[in-house]
Amino acid sequence: MKRNIRFTICYDGTRYSGWERQKNTDATIQGKLEAVLSRLCEEPVTIIGAGRTDAGVHAREMTANALVSVSMSCGQIRDYMNTWLPEDICVLDAAEAGPRFHSRFNASGKTYCYTCYIGAAKPVFDRKYVTCLDQLPDVEAMRQAAEFLTGTHDFASFCGNPKMKKSTVRTIDSITITQKGDYLRFSFHGDGFLQNMVRILVGTLLETGFGKRLPDEMKSVLEAKNRALAGFMAPAQGLCLIAVDYN
Amino acid sequence: MKRNIRFTICYDGTRYSGWERQKNTDATIQGKLEAVLSRLCEEPVTIIGAGRTDAGVHAREMTANALVSVSMSCGQIRDYMNTWLPEDICVLDAAEAGPRFHSRFNASGKTYCYTCYIGAAKPVFDRKYVTCLDQLPDVEAMRQAAEFLTGTHDFASFCGNPKMKKSTVRTIDSITITQKGDYLRFSFHGDGFLQNMVRILVGTLLETGFGKRLPDEMKSVLEAKNRALAGFMAPAQGLCLIAVDYN
Repeated sequence: MKRNIRFTICYDGTRYSGWERQKNTDATIQGKLEAVLSRLCEEPVTIIGAGRTDAGVHAREMTANALVSVSMSCGQIRDYMNTWLPEDICVLDAAEAGPRFHSRFNASGKTYCYTCYIGAAKPVFDRKYVTCLDQLPDVEAMRQAAEFLTGTHDFASFCGNPKMKKSTVRTIDSITITQKGDYLRFSFHGDGFLQNMVRILVGTLLETGFGKRLPDEMKSVLEAKNRALAGFMAPAQGLCLIAVDYN
Repeated sequence: MKRNIRFTICYDGTRYSGWERQKNTDATIQGKLEAVLSRLCEEPVTIIGAGRTDAGVHAREMTANALVSVSMSCGQIRDYMNTWLPEDICVLDAAEAGPRFHSRFNASGKTYCYTCYIGAAKPVFDRKYVTCLDQLPDVEAMRQAAEFLTGTHDFASFCGNPKMKKSTVRTIDSITITQKGDYLRFSFHGDGFLQNMVRILVGTLLETGFGKRLPDEMKSVLEAKNRALAGFMAPAQGLCLIAVDYN
């Protein structure tokens, strides 16, 4: 029987077309991981990720799992992968998981962080990880708008996939918006997020912060279940998957 | 009479062949700055930097100056430059300076910081700004060795230019070595540094920290005035010019 290995993976998404393997490019996180793990196992191996981050989105701790048949220890598998992976992808941990562990189906929650930069000078050293704003939005207005988003809702208005057939109902436990120096951070915790959802939520909150929307408009945007009524999609580079929870 | 503008410049040196303009490449910090400023001034402009950082070395606050004849305000000059400079070079400040101000000749001190990373996982997000070490060197031994370096000495043993004709005497006021989490930082303050000097100092200190040298060997290395007796040159990417002082 194959071993089920659970991986914790950190990556800088700048150079990649997202998590998901694609036919027309090998510049995907899943593709890079599978190539290295398949070479180690001397057979094709599929890596299942807890989610599929968009092109340019980063992750501090993505969880993934794969069924493998090698005799190496988990530490040796981790070290082998880190030796052959590019410098912008790192396996933080590899651990033996139960045979039924599935990184996507078993995930009970996710934390995403979106970082905006509001300084006057260009952010030379973290330019790949922040989205620059010309001015500070009204944080209090954004917090008021965010209150309408927490809880269990149909987030169809905030779904980037117009052909989404499955349920668009999700639960957001908390949204925190904090300013610290030149950085404005949006932190989202929920049971799961639709395609582009965090970026569209941030875009809509920013439009509220810049006075283009009133905070309580968020309620009618949610109720409309119409993507056209929500705001712009904030750029990928400011977004980072912080962690995935399992019960 | 031309105006003398003093610039404070931040840059990520990763993509550049160093500060100094070169004939065979336009990938230099000075070259990029001069190209933009010359276009603004509609005539060739020379930018004088307080120092010449090596290829791959970064700066948080490099000081430079240039004689220009434009009627724009300093803020407008700064904004124009930032609009046209690449995203890894930023003019933090432009200010009117006295006609006699010379960023190199008037500099009275410089602070450099060298950052090593000692974590188990690859430093995905700051991989361009740190040098990875396999293990933590003996910090106390390095501090003892560093004590021999502070003060006024002939640093010929730590000079990367074998054809150096000018004085190799410099004064280092302080060297601090601090460990914080996975980061080990060397901070140097002195009146000036020779070519590659900080990197060779760090390399020699690391060899001490790894037990390849005894701390008090540093004294004889200094006295020998022989580059061959000092240690290896630490990689460029860990080095950052923090600030330049003027009296």
